[in-house]
Amino acid sequence: MTVAEQVALARAAAYKLAVLPTETKNRGLLRIAEVLLDEQDAVLAANATDGEAARTSGLGESLYKRLLLNERKLQIIVDSLRSVAALRDPVGEVLLRRELDDGLELGQVRVPIGVIGVIFESRPDALVQIASLAIKSGNAVILKGGSEAKETNRLLHSLLVRALSETDPAFDGAVALVEGREEIGSVLTMDGQIDLMIPRGSSELVRYIQDNTRIPVLGHADGVCHLYVDESADPGMAIRLTVDSKTQYPAVCNALETLLIHEERTDLLPDIARALKGVELRGCAETRRHIDAAPADESDWSAEYNDLVLAIRVVPSLDAAVDHINRYSSHHTDAIVTADGARAEQFLSRVDSSSVLWNASTRFADGFRYGLGAEVGISTGKIHARGPVGLEGLTTTKYRIVGEGHIVADYADGRMTFTHRDLS
Amino acid sequence: MTVAEQVALARAAAYKLAVLPTETKNRGLLRIAEVLLDEQDAVLAANATDGEAARTSGLGESLYKRLLLNERKLQIIVDSLRSVAALRDPVGEVLLRRELDDGLELGQVRVPIGVIGVIFESRPDALVQIASLAIKSGNAVILKGGSEAKETNRLLHSLLVRALSETDPAFDGAVALVEGREEIGSVLTMDGQIDLMIPRGSSELVRYIQDNTRIPVLGHADGVCHLYVDESADPGMAIRLTVDSKTQYPAVCNALETLLIHEERTDLLPDIARALKGVELRGCAETRRHIDAAPADESDWSAEYNDLVLAIRVVPSLDAAVDHINRYSSHHTDAIVTADGARAEQFLSRVDSSSVLWNASTRFADGFRYGLGAEVGISTGKIHARGPVGLEGLTTTKYRIVGEGHIVADYADGRMTFTHRDLS
Repeated sequence: MTVAEQVALARAAAYKLAVLPTETKNRGLLRIAEVLLDEQDAVLAANATDGEAARTSGLGESLYKRLLLNERKLQIIVDSLRSVAALRDPVGEVLLRRELDDGLELGQVRVPIGVIGVIFESRPDALVQIASLAIKSGNAVILKGGSEAKETNRLLHSLLVRALSETDPAFDGAVALVEGREEIGSVLTMDGQIDLMIPRGSSELVRYIQDNTRIPVLGHADGVCHLYVDESADPGMAIRLTVDSKTQYPAVCNALETLLIHEERTDLLPDIARALKGVELRGCAETRRHIDAAPADESDWSAEYNDLVLAIRVVPSLDAAVDHINRYSSHHTDAIVTADGARAEQFLSRVDSSSVLWNASTRFADGFRYGLGAEVGISTGKIHARGPVGLEGLTTTKYRIVGEGHIVADYADGRMTFTHRDLS
Repeated sequence: MTVAEQVALARAAAYKLAVLPTETKNRGLLRIAEVLLDEQDAVLAANATDGEAARTSGLGESLYKRLLLNERKLQIIVDSLRSVAALRDPVGEVLLRRELDDGLELGQVRVPIGVIGVIFESRPDALVQIASLAIKSGNAVILKGGSEAKETNRLLHSLLVRALSETDPAFDGAVALVEGREEIGSVLTMDGQIDLMIPRGSSELVRYIQDNTRIPVLGHADGVCHLYVDESADPGMAIRLTVDSKTQYPAVCNALETLLIHEERTDLLPDIARALKGVELRGCAETRRHIDAAPADESDWSAEYNDLVLAIRVVPSLDAAVDHINRYSSHHTDAIVTADGARAEQFLSRVDSSSVLWNASTRFADGFRYGLGAEVGISTGKIHARGPVGLEGLTTTKYRIVGEGHIVADYADGRMTFTHRDLS
């Protein structure tokens, strides 16, 4: 099948999925979980084939780790399918009910977006996670995985398709897999057919997608996250949050990249530096008067190291911290440590990022930790969903009006007037 | 000032507007209303200058009518400013409160988008309406009006700036006016500085903007709206809704363009044709067996006439009507006339459009009629706002976490677990 044929089938499936009962969608998800458990050995064998090829081709260590599945990772995939099945179905939720006039009622309801294209790298578990969120929210999905996980993705996809077709014919064509570089090209030209693209992977991948399609793109390219240690910060908390934000998993988007510290708290710098043993520090001139650090230059303030490297800058005030963040941050996740509630409120209100935190690690910015069940990604865009995106971010809304033959001429000519009364 | 300088000032203003109290924003709006009333004669004089120039240059009749202001139209502008001041402020609204664990709370709050670019044609009242919605929702706005309303726009803008600066210095730079074709070009390249573009005008204008910027665009290019007369439709209602949807204001986006009629109700066609006296009819072969109509060809099914022209097609079933609409509609506004609730529900659920109506005129799809107070436009996109867009569509959200020094390592290592309890 060509990509265009797959997308046309997905489009047709999307109209069926949009009105599919929650219970049928849940049965599909639970059936996928069963089939994956039944076929665990085959999945691990396909993954081993990909793993060997990756070793031969010299795939980087961190991508290699993400590629590999094992029994524990498969169990997490299965648990995640069950937890998505247990989530409330957002489709059909009534957001607004308003009487416009006698016998004329307006409603606003949540509906699926339609056909969603997902491009992901390396991690084959992303295929199942994203497909499950798409199905639960009534969307069809076009998946394009990384070539390094080709065998695993093919098998996972065929098992998904089998489980869904055993559940209900409405799922036919709802989950499509495309392969190859030219296929990405075709997918990106299909605005009008595909409603939303979600790239999951490196910032280069995300920027490439953003630059090469008219389809709206949900996600983030960079995660340049800050922790600001305010004047009144508790010393132990400041150190603990710095260490967790920077080192708990440095390769991810919500890890700390720049530490800002109030000029009255530079006394904490030596302890922070000690606690960050093994982390390369790059500091401003004032920082370097207190600790051993390489000189930071302008490029460090907007760098996403994704590694054990930290930029440190001393700032004269809360205002300066907010200004620095609004200028250099990627508007992903930024935090303050302070004992002063009024100053925290200033920071939380004025920092223009998708997640802002007070006295908590930047690493909390995540769909699972926020209780969204799972996430399709984290959006730093301001249009549509922002921050970790779960089921609701995969829906849009529709206005529904029910009347008794009402015409606009009656209102335009002043014979009738609107009541505009919100209903429970 | 260059456009870049204006946008930089607007960006700075946006950060101040984001935390401005509702009361200050309302005072600004009410002060604009006062100033416009005080300067009514000057506004009408500037508008007369534009009007004369438009006559000389031979501006089309319908654009000319939209350009002209009079005392009544100015009063409507003033009333609209007061009604926007009276609307609930969406900024700060709490959408979610969730305990993640003891002492760790997640909130999701509504915040302004930031800097919004608006490009509009002809109607100078749009300048005030859009600026007022932007201010109320805490956004800065870059306005680009049509050259045919140059004098009016300049004066309205200077009065807005004066009224706002008399109210609070936080408004400085919040409302900018740019002029000229090259300036549009600069505005469109400023992704990163401008968060959202809203084009209001012809479909050509909207498509031009969509094709020439990486900034997200909110709006609609086409309004190809349908009314489907079902088997069990009440004859009088079918005729009344057809006439209102088509003729009450044929030049606008929510006017009817294609009438679909069930093959068992072709008996209504002669009465409908009579009621549509003065409307040019283009019908399918079956339609033309019942009434006098020009033959419709394939292009008529996707035509937006914006004029007294109607395409008519006889369909064999509700399914065929839904399929026709999902294929040819611009997903703007589509309606069904039927006495059968179950069939109406089928239509409302399965038609994939921003507004769907049962037994009501397509002309109701409008922000004022929906009780949104006013609208910045109608969106047919599925990402972000959909349908008539008022204050909420000019906001985004932000996740806020408040902790007591919580770190992710405790949860990753299994020492602590999330409670994920939604709070009132």
